[in-house]
Amino acid sequence: MKTLEIFDTTLRDGAQTEGISFSVSDKLSIARTLDEFGIRYIEGGNPGSNPKDMEFFKSIDSKSLKNATLVAFGSTKRKGVAVETDENVISLLEANTPSVAIFGKAWDLHVSEILRTTLKENLDCVEETVRFFKDKGKEVIFDAEHFFDGYKDNPEYAIEVLRAAESGGADVLVLCDTNGGVLPTQVYRAVKTVCDYFPGMRIGIHCHNDTGCAVANSLIAVKAGACHVQGTFAGIGERCGNADLSVIIPNLQIKDEYLCVENGLEKLSETVIRISEISNLSVPSNKPYVGESAFAHKGGMHIDGVDKLSKSFEHIDPSLVGNSRRFLLSEVSGRKAVLLKIRKFEPELTKDSPETKIILDTLKELEYEGYQFEAAEASFELLVKKITGKFKPHFELNMYKATSENPAPEGEQNSIAMVKIMVDGNAETTASPGNGPVNALDLALRKALSVFYPQLSDVQLIDYKVRVLETDQTTESRVRVLIESTDKNSSWATVGVSTDIIEASFIALVDSLEYKLYKEKL
Amino acid sequence: MKTLEIFDTTLRDGAQTEGISFSVSDKLSIARTLDEFGIRYIEGGNPGSNPKDMEFFKSIDSKSLKNATLVAFGSTKRKGVAVETDENVISLLEANTPSVAIFGKAWDLHVSEILRTTLKENLDCVEETVRFFKDKGKEVIFDAEHFFDGYKDNPEYAIEVLRAAESGGADVLVLCDTNGGVLPTQVYRAVKTVCDYFPGMRIGIHCHNDTGCAVANSLIAVKAGACHVQGTFAGIGERCGNADLSVIIPNLQIKDEYLCVENGLEKLSETVIRISEISNLSVPSNKPYVGESAFAHKGGMHIDGVDKLSKSFEHIDPSLVGNSRRFLLSEVSGRKAVLLKIRKFEPELTKDSPETKIILDTLKELEYEGYQFEAAEASFELLVKKITGKFKPHFELNMYKATSENPAPEGEQNSIAMVKIMVDGNAETTASPGNGPVNALDLALRKALSVFYPQLSDVQLIDYKVRVLETDQTTESRVRVLIESTDKNSSWATVGVSTDIIEASFIALVDSLEYKLYKEKL
Repeated sequence: MKTLEIFDTTLRDGAQTEGISFSVSDKLSIARTLDEFGIRYIEGGNPGSNPKDMEFFKSIDSKSLKNATLVAFGSTKRKGVAVETDENVISLLEANTPSVAIFGKAWDLHVSEILRTTLKENLDCVEETVRFFKDKGKEVIFDAEHFFDGYKDNPEYAIEVLRAAESGGADVLVLCDTNGGVLPTQVYRAVKTVCDYFPGMRIGIHCHNDTGCAVANSLIAVKAGACHVQGTFAGIGERCGNADLSVIIPNLQIKDEYLCVENGLEKLSETVIRISEISNLSVPSNKPYVGESAFAHKGGMHIDGVDKLSKSFEHIDPSLVGNSRRFLLSEVSGRKAVLLKIRKFEPELTKDSPETKIILDTLKELEYEGYQFEAAEASFELLVKKITGKFKPHFELNMYKATSENPAPEGEQNSIAMVKIMVDGNAETTASPGNGPVNALDLALRKALSVFYPQLSDVQLIDYKVRVLETDQTTESRVRVLIESTDKNSSWATVGVSTDIIEASFIALVDSLEYKLYKEKL
Repeated sequence: MKTLEIFDTTLRDGAQTEGISFSVSDKLSIARTLDEFGIRYIEGGNPGSNPKDMEFFKSIDSKSLKNATLVAFGSTKRKGVAVETDENVISLLEANTPSVAIFGKAWDLHVSEILRTTLKENLDCVEETVRFFKDKGKEVIFDAEHFFDGYKDNPEYAIEVLRAAESGGADVLVLCDTNGGVLPTQVYRAVKTVCDYFPGMRIGIHCHNDTGCAVANSLIAVKAGACHVQGTFAGIGERCGNADLSVIIPNLQIKDEYLCVENGLEKLSETVIRISEISNLSVPSNKPYVGESAFAHKGGMHIDGVDKLSKSFEHIDPSLVGNSRRFLLSEVSGRKAVLLKIRKFEPELTKDSPETKIILDTLKELEYEGYQFEAAEASFELLVKKITGKFKPHFELNMYKATSENPAPEGEQNSIAMVKIMVDGNAETTASPGNGPVNALDLALRKALSVFYPQLSDVQLIDYKVRVLETDQTTESRVRVLIESTDKNSSWATVGVSTDIIEASFIALVDSLEYKLYKEKL
């Protein structure tokens, strides 16, 4: 196995993502998460352009990192300024990292049209800046910005820029596809040429996903001789994102002969989820390797095949990346998939049992209404148990009423909810204020139920998602609410659908509490 | 330019996507949309496995298609059954399409372990089935399922399967990466070998995205000699999706020398959006070429560069694919980006104007609260105009109150809302029932306002999105509501944020109506 250097730029290039705004504490959490996973380099930010990034470098104890080397990013010195007096260079030095990434222009067009300087002066800026940091004892990673566009328009100059960085003492030369426009059929030759020009030098690759090929381009560059791969862990980044390390790493380490991470990849899925959560982004369900659907099977023939021999329809064992196989329920999944799922809860049911038919018919009807049980197994289990007569509700709802007003009554929260429930013939009516109508209802329902079931105070909601269905109906649309709950020992998900978001939330809340009570009795 | 055949399987392989369930009318709309865009082949479904697909083939008038040939999909005949009596074969014939796609196993492991038959019998099934349809006058596209896995394990047999299809008279041999596990560094040689073995035969490629390389693998196959490319238009499909035609087509047609679609690609973005809407999926904002962020610039230096020379930071002109450039507002976008945006509405403001500072500070504060103006330009314009004193609210809200109850009062809807507004000292109080509290509020507010502004009856909401922020706070989370409105001539988007979904919706509704009134006065 050949060892590769993985370089993560979530905190720098990833911060350019539309909708992303990391706090310093977000940055510290992400750095720790990447380090624990075993990433070799973590680029923390651009201290010269962003005060928050400088604060990050001042806050982090780089010696606490177990695997990673911390990198600060900045540009070459400006034209006409002595390197030691250039503000950006000074900031970069102040970030006090063992390694720095210096970017310089490798496309002649950018030098003349954007920097508005001469080709010669740009080469001098590159060489002097690299040498300055080498003299200060830093490892210097040189990012050749726009390398692929430059190599296409003026290959001699693009190589000269790399040569200038080499002369300055650079440790790594990184070929950047800054605009993300290069095609996989163009990458191999360019990278191979550079590797041949600079034997013994560490060559890196930095891709963006504007042609949907950032992962493939990175793999091809490695085959052509690159040993250093830059990207962001969950693929975030400006425009269409950076090369996605969470896809590149398993491609190279599980399906090819490279070592990217010493510890293995069993924590890949949870690491992607954690970083996405800190970034306040959800993980797309179809994300390769780590998405919820990445090993989900829906077609009847596929389910049948995986059931006989998993490798027949799975390109890797999902446990290698900490993911798992799922069989989905739908009109194309066939009776077998539904049966496999139902029998998880009711092993004695067969495909000919009358209950099976009722379950299938009910499912179909609920799916038509907008329900989806793929992500709400607790609601599905309750549904099966209701039909087989093994679940008896623990309470009856007589009514609820939720009111929001604006302005809020003086000294009060803006919402209030009232509920009336019955347990074994005993009624309990109560009310609670809340931050919004759903919050008020949640609090009122728990308050009423805890009179009879004090154990419900252990239950906490940990996620609440709203999806608007049929959006052409706008405020009359149906909404689907997914709730995830926990009681310290385990967590479960439930679902509710209605044209009224309050009702949809209430349905999911009731299922969540009923599920807890039901599980406890078993 | 070399012409390629683009083959869309949204309606067949795309229907395997988790969460997707097409109605027959959805399928008809998607087929029409693909045809109008200029797709060469539309695979409509598997009539033998799914009654809904058969209904689609019976409903569609294939002569009404202007560009596309309709294709029905099905498996080779089963072992031990005469081809003309095989149920699937009969269904496929009944679908009555000019072209059929027949899939057969090309991986010896699948033949022995999943089909549980002999290698010889599988070859016979392939050849006989293909010949049967050729004798009926059909064009036959042979999908060699699991070709790449088969080619790796037993290349001779994989080629023999293709040979059997050729002997039967197949018009196209499609190499399928059914499990999606092939890497770009493995594709070229396999496809090139097949093209060399079958000179003059049309060779196709069918990729899945399990390694994040489906687009790249398709491009590499074309370079190796394939002339027929299968995928789904928006990349949907089981697990991680099929090869995404909306990315492959511009890669080949704009950035390389192939002709995929006669009419040009100016309708690419709107076609992806339309198909996604019918599928009830949102288009990821970072989707190459067509996503909202695909040409959005956030970094200060990038914005500065694009402003000087667009090609410096854009790999293509966004108008070629019907998309457009956007400058984003954030702490990393720099004053220049914000200024460019502000000056769209207030051309006379400079970076030193006192109003500019107030706008920037207000933006920062609102972003901290969870607002995002990137997708809500109308709210941003109102914000700027409020600060520069050029916007005066057209009404004042005295109060609203929305109540939802369950069960609903007999004969009533479950929600009711009351509002009181003031216009020029005149109060109007009214109320409306609704399907849910937001719907009731929307109706009540319009009702009250239309007393003073009858023109508001033209305004319709066309989209309503809810995003839960800080999900660890669950039902106390903040929600961000985005509303898109139209008045026939134009459409605009507004935003509201609150811990209370009703309040957040109300803020966005008010902005939407105020924006309409404000625009009318100009």
